[in-house]
Amino acid sequence: MIKLGIIGAGRIGKVHAESINKYVVDAEVKSIADPFMNEEISKWAENMGIKNTYKDYKEILNDTEIDAVLVCSSTDTHSQISIEAARAGKHIFCEKPIDHDVEKIKEVLREVEKAGVKYQVGFNRRFDHNFRAIKETVQSGKIGAPHIIKVTSRDPEAPPIDYVRVSGGMFLDMTIHDFDMIRFLSGSEVEEVYAMGNVLVDPAIGEAGDIDTAIVTLKLANGALGVIDNSRQAAYGYDQRAEVFGSKGSVAVTNDTGSRAVISTQEGVAAEKPLHFFLERYMQAYAEEIKEFIAAVVNDTEVPVNALDGLKPVLIGLAAKKSIQEGRPVKISEIEM
Amino acid sequence: MIKLGIIGAGRIGKVHAESINKYVVDAEVKSIADPFMNEEISKWAENMGIKNTYKDYKEILNDTEIDAVLVCSSTDTHSQISIEAARAGKHIFCEKPIDHDVEKIKEVLREVEKAGVKYQVGFNRRFDHNFRAIKETVQSGKIGAPHIIKVTSRDPEAPPIDYVRVSGGMFLDMTIHDFDMIRFLSGSEVEEVYAMGNVLVDPAIGEAGDIDTAIVTLKLANGALGVIDNSRQAAYGYDQRAEVFGSKGSVAVTNDTGSRAVISTQEGVAAEKPLHFFLERYMQAYAEEIKEFIAAVVNDTEVPVNALDGLKPVLIGLAAKKSIQEGRPVKISEIEM
Amino acid sequence: MIKLGIIGAGRIGKVHAESINKYVVDAEVKSIADPFMNEEISKWAENMGIKNTYKDYKEILNDTEIDAVLVCSSTDTHSQISIEAARAGKHIFCEKPIDHDVEKIKEVLREVEKAGVKYQVGFNRRFDHNFRAIKETVQSGKIGAPHIIKVTSRDPEAPPIDYVRVSGGMFLDMTIHDFDMIRFLSGSEVEEVYAMGNVLVDPAIGEAGDIDTAIVTLKLANGALGVIDNSRQAAYGYDQRAEVFGSKGSVAVTNDTGSRAVISTQEGVAAEKPLHFFLERYMQAYAEEIKEFIAAVVNDTEVPVNALDGLKPVLIGLAAKKSIQEGRPVKISEIEM
Amino acid sequence: MIKLGIIGAGRIGKVHAESINKYVVDAEVKSIADPFMNEEISKWAENMGIKNTYKDYKEILNDTEIDAVLVCSSTDTHSQISIEAARAGKHIFCEKPIDHDVEKIKEVLREVEKAGVKYQVGFNRRFDHNFRAIKETVQSGKIGAPHIIKVTSRDPEAPPIDYVRVSGGMFLDMTIHDFDMIRFLSGSEVEEVYAMGNVLVDPAIGEAGDIDTAIVTLKLANGALGVIDNSRQAAYGYDQRAEVFGSKGSVAVTNDTGSRAVISTQEGVAAEKPLHFFLERYMQAYAEEIKEFIAAVVNDTEVPVNALDGLKPVLIGLAAKKSIQEGRPVKISEIEM
Repeated sequence: MIKLGIIGAGRIGKVHAESINKYVVDAEVKSIADPFMNEEISKWAENMGIKNTYKDYKEILNDTEIDAVLVCSSTDTHSQISIEAARAGKHIFCEKPIDHDVEKIKEVLREVEKAGVKYQVGFNRRFDHNFRAIKETVQSGKIGAPHIIKVTSRDPEAPPIDYVRVSGGMFLDMTIHDFDMIRFLSGSEVEEVYAMGNVLVDPAIGEAGDIDTAIVTLKLANGALGVIDNSRQAAYGYDQRAEVFGSKGSVAVTNDTGSRAVISTQEGVAAEKPLHFFLERYMQAYAEEIKEFIAAVVNDTEVPVNALDGLKPVLIGLAAKKSIQEGRPVKISEIEM
Repeated sequence: MIKLGIIGAGRIGKVHAESINKYVVDAEVKSIADPFMNEEISKWAENMGIKNTYKDYKEILNDTEIDAVLVCSSTDTHSQISIEAARAGKHIFCEKPIDHDVEKIKEVLREVEKAGVKYQVGFNRRFDHNFRAIKETVQSGKIGAPHIIKVTSRDPEAPPIDYVRVSGGMFLDMTIHDFDMIRFLSGSEVEEVYAMGNVLVDPAIGEAGDIDTAIVTLKLANGALGVIDNSRQAAYGYDQRAEVFGSKGSVAVTNDTGSRAVISTQEGVAAEKPLHFFLERYMQAYAEEIKEFIAAVVNDTEVPVNALDGLKPVLIGLAAKKSIQEGRPVKISEIEM
Repeated sequence: MIKLGIIGAGRIGKVHAESINKYVVDAEVKSIADPFMNEEISKWAENMGIKNTYKDYKEILNDTEIDAVLVCSSTDTHSQISIEAARAGKHIFCEKPIDHDVEKIKEVLREVEKAGVKYQVGFNRRFDHNFRAIKETVQSGKIGAPHIIKVTSRDPEAPPIDYVRVSGGMFLDMTIHDFDMIRFLSGSEVEEVYAMGNVLVDPAIGEAGDIDTAIVTLKLANGALGVIDNSRQAAYGYDQRAEVFGSKGSVAVTNDTGSRAVISTQEGVAAEKPLHFFLERYMQAYAEEIKEFIAAVVNDTEVPVNALDGLKPVLIGLAAKKSIQEGRPVKISEIEM
Repeated sequence: MIKLGIIGAGRIGKVHAESINKYVVDAEVKSIADPFMNEEISKWAENMGIKNTYKDYKEILNDTEIDAVLVCSSTDTHSQISIEAARAGKHIFCEKPIDHDVEKIKEVLREVEKAGVKYQVGFNRRFDHNFRAIKETVQSGKIGAPHIIKVTSRDPEAPPIDYVRVSGGMFLDMTIHDFDMIRFLSGSEVEEVYAMGNVLVDPAIGEAGDIDTAIVTLKLANGALGVIDNSRQAAYGYDQRAEVFGSKGSVAVTNDTGSRAVISTQEGVAAEKPLHFFLERYMQAYAEEIKEFIAAVVNDTEVPVNALDGLKPVLIGLAAKKSIQEGRPVKISEIEM
């Protein structure tokens, strides 16, 4: 029985605690820490069978009974806590992104390697049944060599402006998942990026120095081309589709819905909207990623999404940002240096 | 170049004239007759390049230049005109049903055989691309031996009550197409029928002695079971679907639409309603059935839907009617005697 | 915290234990009994956190700490155990069917009423997201008054012949769910049934005195017509669809699949088969029905599927059986007497 | 009755002659000219009821009875013949592109204006029922202001290498339709283009100096972003889809198929591939564009796709070409000068 500590009791920290409770048989959450720990969270923790609640995450790192930690704190603390946890000998599951600063991510990589602990990054979409079906089809060879990889990723609503300001920009906050998806589905590395963006959803986003609508084109090492279209606000809900087109055919997935009901009336033929947002759409994927992390710890095998997989999308995101700023395609090698 | 005469200048007579004009290269309509011939029809005929317009269809039968006639007059005249046309040595395309009276249909069969002319019945749905795709799949063996044949057939709106009164009842007027479809798709004969019906759309239909909603179950000679569901009024339009389920799988078709557009908004995900009614849905099928009739005449080959195919669905329709009246399953052999 | 005992540790008993473990927060399984209790089951029970394992279910009935029992034993013991459990003052969740004998079901009803305990029957499909979506659409009035209710229900493979012999026949074993679905979706009672059946899947089923393919037509109290098509074996998997057609439109559901992937190649455009069988398709529905049972116990409210809902489909099933035997439509009132 | 002359008796010239014959009531093709006129073409022309066949198109221009000409000759002759036809006072329907040379197109524009004749360019896809449905939805305001316009355009097979060499490159030969579609669907002008391309289908295409796979990103005057993905070879056939995403929702179309049949077997659930190529997919659109051209001539109204609509996509194509060559985004204004 693996004992876990969760660092950060915000939305995603709770999601992980709950899905471990429901779906993961060989692990249990022993402790949870949050600087804003309060009675409400403590009560929730008690209901979940979590023994200890702390304000200071170091209590978790100091607990020798705890095998692994889930870093679910605010983004700007990910790299620092990761380093401390590695030094404490804990296996680490860290929410994305590890950091916005490439140097800090590299430091995490070095510390993790030195400590010899497992390090998994929270690219949950890789565990979604739909994207897995694409990946498996590509790997089966049914559609031949990939030529074009397309990702559509649109949120149902823009985050609060206060969040936008500290988010690192849309590319590092939202598109980073799509950069990972391009790598995952293509099985290849991104070499060059060109991004076109605009502020079409909300002028306040522009005033905060960000964009809300974008098309990103990517050149991959295997010659394939990738393209992502993003919007911070889709009126019909969370739009998460992808397609890989190859020499022998294509594989594409559409959105999940709450039911398969189709209603035909004088007004037309109506189906349901996509599941509203990431909690609805990716609930099973969140459980699956933790399951596989625990399995890697238990069996001492490779984690499915490692620290390098955490670094690469940040590099792509920084290149996309530079591309927008300078109005030209940017090579990943320009960022890496 | 085959020369044709059309008897009956109502809606379906005009549909045939127009589709011959557009799609049939080796035939032309020389004459058209209608007891209610008037200036409007004459003008239309002139535009269509039809030389002669008559009140009396006998003028067409007496024209030795005319090779074949299309019987598009009112249902109660089909068998009489068919007999006269056969005696005049014309090949005959006759709209369904040949007659509501089995004896009269049998007389037509005898006269047609005696005269040695071609006789095709207007079961246009056999020529629809969707139902053809089912038929071809069944024949290919891909779904194995047919076990269940399902037909959904619902009109967008009920006919006028005056028409209902003389229509011979829903089974002979509307379901007759579905009885033909069951025979066509199964490749087998119907042996027994049980019908359950009700008046749910319009009480006036009940007062006129008819029903507007029905489920008909059919036992086929090859052991398969058939089922038809009918309504005189579907709010969303013309609903024409079918499925054959067999030992190795199933094949099903959905409705055609004007476009493949899907609109996603806050209200939901909306597609188009089915094409409104038979003229929209079966326009190509009407052209196709005439093309194949002409081809059978030109090449002296078998017509694709012969006089016996015209008789069988009437027998099934009469059995369904009797089943409703007597509240029990009825064998086709009870009707045939 | 409600304490539960499970009687019967076969497939469905285990499914319930596991889903209570995962999804039901305010109940726990204290004990499980099975006449064939063995080490394997005991080990599984231990893993599930179940304290007691018994051979004799009476140990559970005698345990005053236990609030409610789940009757998951073989069908022929359902009514007897239900009666004993009611007399022991336990709330009861009973798998379908309660019994094949109407008199015994009525005795259960009397004993349950006398004891004042909750009694829920395991018609799990009512809790499926797709069928719920139909029900909610019908209740919303969007499609008007129901005219036609259609249920397609086909299993991926026939049960073993030994099971077929004791199953009570396809109508009481398999179609009974569909009879319940017709009642659930229409909100009305079945008054008359006509069934047409055949042996098309496996001659051994016929030799065992049963059928494997059927069309059942039903007349409902509100005037609507119902139709069910059944097969014991669909090559492509578990086919569970339904449609309600009404005065203002229709609502229909298709099958769930493992993913929404569509693969386009030279061979065609391919999607996934339906989820294979009831465990895959209805896993969430099994959890949901138990959740609602527990909620009814905790809050002392009506159970969502009561004992009368357990009786009615058996009556319809017996009528369908009689219809096949006598080749005529059978009124439910003929069975009830 | 409008009298037409067709210049060029290749595939597209014949398509137009045949669809005028079938679908256009108020026009007839009087003459057809082709430098390679031969017996086979003459026979075909006779069958189509075309009176005159010439080698020299000037015979058509000199025929004062002819009101309008269809320029269906090889691309390099479009602008020259257009100019001569304008000077001869003929209304002109010209296949795309008018020319690859911007100056020559501008000369055509001047001559057409001077002569006061109608000039329509053959962007047939604007007349396709699916793309029209998108356009109408955008215009209806249902999806709000357009933010992202996506076009997927993939051919079933690459053209012969000899053709590739003289085609002007994929952007001017194939993508030009997609550039027009972006303008049509967005109702806005393209201001800047970035193109990423590769040779993934056939190395011979690369040796001929062209690419076969591309992603093109476009910045529009109204702030919206456009994106096109192209391949010269899709194993599953002609892939022609589009989507407009806006502030209130999105509208998207999928491909047409020969039938709506879905076959479910042990292997999976299979639907038909898209209609094979442009002749199958756009047959009705070809008829529609000519109908509207004739209507504009008859009623002296604006043509639906004018000479300027012929110029703009060429400018975008040249910008895309330059973008590939120079590895940077290119403004349309750089090309126009």
